[in-house]
Amino acid sequence: MHVLLRSVATVALAASALTTVSAQSAAKTDSVNIRRIYDEALLHGQSYENLRQLTGQVGGRLSGSPEAQKAVEWGKAAMEKAGFDKVYLQEVMVPHWVRGAKEKAEAKAGGKTTKFNVCALGGSVGTNGKLKAGVVEVDTWDELAALPAEKVKGKIVFFNRPMNPTFIETGRAYGDAGDQRRRGAIEAAKRGAVGALVRSLSLAHDDYPHTGTMSYDDKVTKLPAAALSTNGADQLSQLLKADPNLTFELEMNSQQLPEVKSYNVVGELKGSKYPNEIITVGGHLDSWDLAQGAHDDGTGIVQSMEVLRLLKATGLRPERTVRAVFFMNEENGTRGGLKYAELAKAANEQHVAAMESDGGGFTPRGFGVDADPATLAKIQQWAPLFKPYHSEEIGAGHGGTDIGPLKGQVKALIGYECDDQRYFDIHHTAADTFDKVNRRELELGDASMAALIYLISKYGL
Amino acid sequence: MHVLLRSVATVALAASALTTVSAQSAAKTDSVNIRRIYDEALLHGQSYENLRQLTGQVGGRLSGSPEAQKAVEWGKAAMEKAGFDKVYLQEVMVPHWVRGAKEKAEAKAGGKTTKFNVCALGGSVGTNGKLKAGVVEVDTWDELAALPAEKVKGKIVFFNRPMNPTFIETGRAYGDAGDQRRRGAIEAAKRGAVGALVRSLSLAHDDYPHTGTMSYDDKVTKLPAAALSTNGADQLSQLLKADPNLTFELEMNSQQLPEVKSYNVVGELKGSKYPNEIITVGGHLDSWDLAQGAHDDGTGIVQSMEVLRLLKATGLRPERTVRAVFFMNEENGTRGGLKYAELAKAANEQHVAAMESDGGGFTPRGFGVDADPATLAKIQQWAPLFKPYHSEEIGAGHGGTDIGPLKGQVKALIGYECDDQRYFDIHHTAADTFDKVNRRELELGDASMAALIYLISKYGL
Repeated sequence: MHVLLRSVATVALAASALTTVSAQSAAKTDSVNIRRIYDEALLHGQSYENLRQLTGQVGGRLSGSPEAQKAVEWGKAAMEKAGFDKVYLQEVMVPHWVRGAKEKAEAKAGGKTTKFNVCALGGSVGTNGKLKAGVVEVDTWDELAALPAEKVKGKIVFFNRPMNPTFIETGRAYGDAGDQRRRGAIEAAKRGAVGALVRSLSLAHDDYPHTGTMSYDDKVTKLPAAALSTNGADQLSQLLKADPNLTFELEMNSQQLPEVKSYNVVGELKGSKYPNEIITVGGHLDSWDLAQGAHDDGTGIVQSMEVLRLLKATGLRPERTVRAVFFMNEENGTRGGLKYAELAKAANEQHVAAMESDGGGFTPRGFGVDADPATLAKIQQWAPLFKPYHSEEIGAGHGGTDIGPLKGQVKALIGYECDDQRYFDIHHTAADTFDKVNRRELELGDASMAALIYLISKYGL
Repeated sequence: MHVLLRSVATVALAASALTTVSAQSAAKTDSVNIRRIYDEALLHGQSYENLRQLTGQVGGRLSGSPEAQKAVEWGKAAMEKAGFDKVYLQEVMVPHWVRGAKEKAEAKAGGKTTKFNVCALGGSVGTNGKLKAGVVEVDTWDELAALPAEKVKGKIVFFNRPMNPTFIETGRAYGDAGDQRRRGAIEAAKRGAVGALVRSLSLAHDDYPHTGTMSYDDKVTKLPAAALSTNGADQLSQLLKADPNLTFELEMNSQQLPEVKSYNVVGELKGSKYPNEIITVGGHLDSWDLAQGAHDDGTGIVQSMEVLRLLKATGLRPERTVRAVFFMNEENGTRGGLKYAELAKAANEQHVAAMESDGGGFTPRGFGVDADPATLAKIQQWAPLFKPYHSEEIGAGHGGTDIGPLKGQVKALIGYECDDQRYFDIHHTAADTFDKVNRRELELGDASMAALIYLISKYGL
């Protein structure tokens, strides 16, 4: 069937190419070349099979774990197999937190015991045996501050403010409610509490607890902190209404181990005209430990590699050097991103742009750009080229956590943006698995990213 | 938690409302009202629970089946419970085709038997016992026409042209390859074949056979016609390369029964100013029998009903009458759509616009409009109101199969358009189930549809 499909694609290209010759316009050439990128992605895409390997053979790969090391080896081998001009590792020390085997929670109220699905937040200390305490529920920092001391001291503070479903951008709702996970244990400790429970950051109503990074402040006690599923949080809230004096039991043996040597994985296509000008495209290789890290951020990894493959396979050799970077340790430290920027600075590298895909592998929508207005305008002028692919929403936005440290060394930080409505349903849970990724949606994203990288590699910024 | 969420929404509204008062502009009022529609959909939406009921309690509901009757009863009860101004049925006779219990297929080549997942195409005759024949594979009508008579006579023609993955719009790829399913049995019969096998209309590579309607021509023999899964089609193609003389055995006892009385279900909100001007919003209540008909078209049904509920719940009483219509028999006859238009004409009803949702319940993208240029332009001028919701793609397009018969009686036929990249993976298969529908994606569509209906009900066309 491939023969037929190729011929269909070729006919379309020939027609477009004809128009191009007569119009003699660069925009038309670009349009045809972008169509070639999409055709290659949709007909012969390899990102989906690469993702199947990464999620199936390696699985969850938290920084410092043996699986993370396996992911580094997989990534290097995959890039070498893809035949890039140069493949190498960048050494970086990363934190090594382990969940431990025990994660148990139950509430005892009126002689009845109710079990809860919980997971330790990333970085949390363990409970050192069983933690038994009362629970006080709050939705806001003001509520916590207003509570009299005796209501908090010795208790577990239960942060139960849901993500706001009326935000159309789910990422905004995630940011808005995420302070509870990030600062909950610190603020609870300041008031003399003994633990923190956080409602999972999800817009779905289900039984998956969502992990994610949390912080400590050396000035106060490090409290154990765990996430409840959204259903579990609703249930605990109801139990508390019936019996505000219920007892909650939490047992976790998570712990922080010494730092471990790990790596960013880097692959390059050397620029044909301006080899010293560098365009980075990346995702993060580490994931949380609960699942396969498919959408977070396996898709970003395989997309970054696919961008280079698409440029190679279509013969659109970039004029500037394009680098795929598999960053290590986005989830709990950003050490890979920091190291990459540090090495780039030390080597006096000339960076043009950096793009990151870390919002899932869903249908593309466009790009969020962190750059000065003139640079943003330059990128926005290409929007019409993306319109046939529904990927033309280009505006000011967030680049990405891993590329963030390049700020000041690069003209534009660019975040790949896709339809993230269902992203937070599975984010940081056991449900973030390969089967949640749709092949076409992923491949359309691959092509969309490659198209913008192609334009930047041709025109610069 | 609802208290908190409401308060968040109210704050947002109050801020927007303030701007509105000072700007005194209709567009700002519309913007605020549309935000209210979205808030109601995302905070208190009922479409997802309604879909759970329809797919779980009724399930697959092919025209003429007891399940289709159950769906009519469920639909009427649901509309009555929603408290619309008027709920009624429109009687319509529908075809009654039944699949039968037996669907078996295997290929025998070189002493080896290979089993295939197949399903009868909708409307196909049975095989009257076991059909045994050789197979000839074709990709195009020209290939079939070029085959010498002895290569086709007595054979099963295997139409194996895949959907073209390079079309960005999957619906276009579906239309492009769909001629094989629609006309395959007729063209095969013209050449003296004894059966037709069709590669499933899907962009996925899996084991689900996809059913769907097919046609006969009274001038030639009615051949049994079945779909192979895409994996099965690839496998049969390979077997044929190894042994062009293999024998294929097909057994199906599908049959056409006498027509059955059925119904469209209609619910109305009476227009406050122009009750005689009617806006229709609908989907189709029937589905294929293989699965639950979740995305096709359970989502269209619950969205249509939700549009009326959203207008009611937000207090945005429409100035023109808005009708939700659950059309019967879209899949194999369009009898419901034809009856609706016929009754509208007979009653001399004044129809302003008709909207249909029949492309799945995915993240909204915009609307396809079938109207004269001036009317299209009028609708397009509202696009900025949809931009904050990523639903602003409004252009010329197809309205929908069920509302199609209204053409000429209505100013605009409007198709709700959403991100359909994964639609055809599950379309007309056993995999079209409730769990494939994401709550937020569905609700964003509900709101998007309701917002346009609100604008049309206020301004007319």
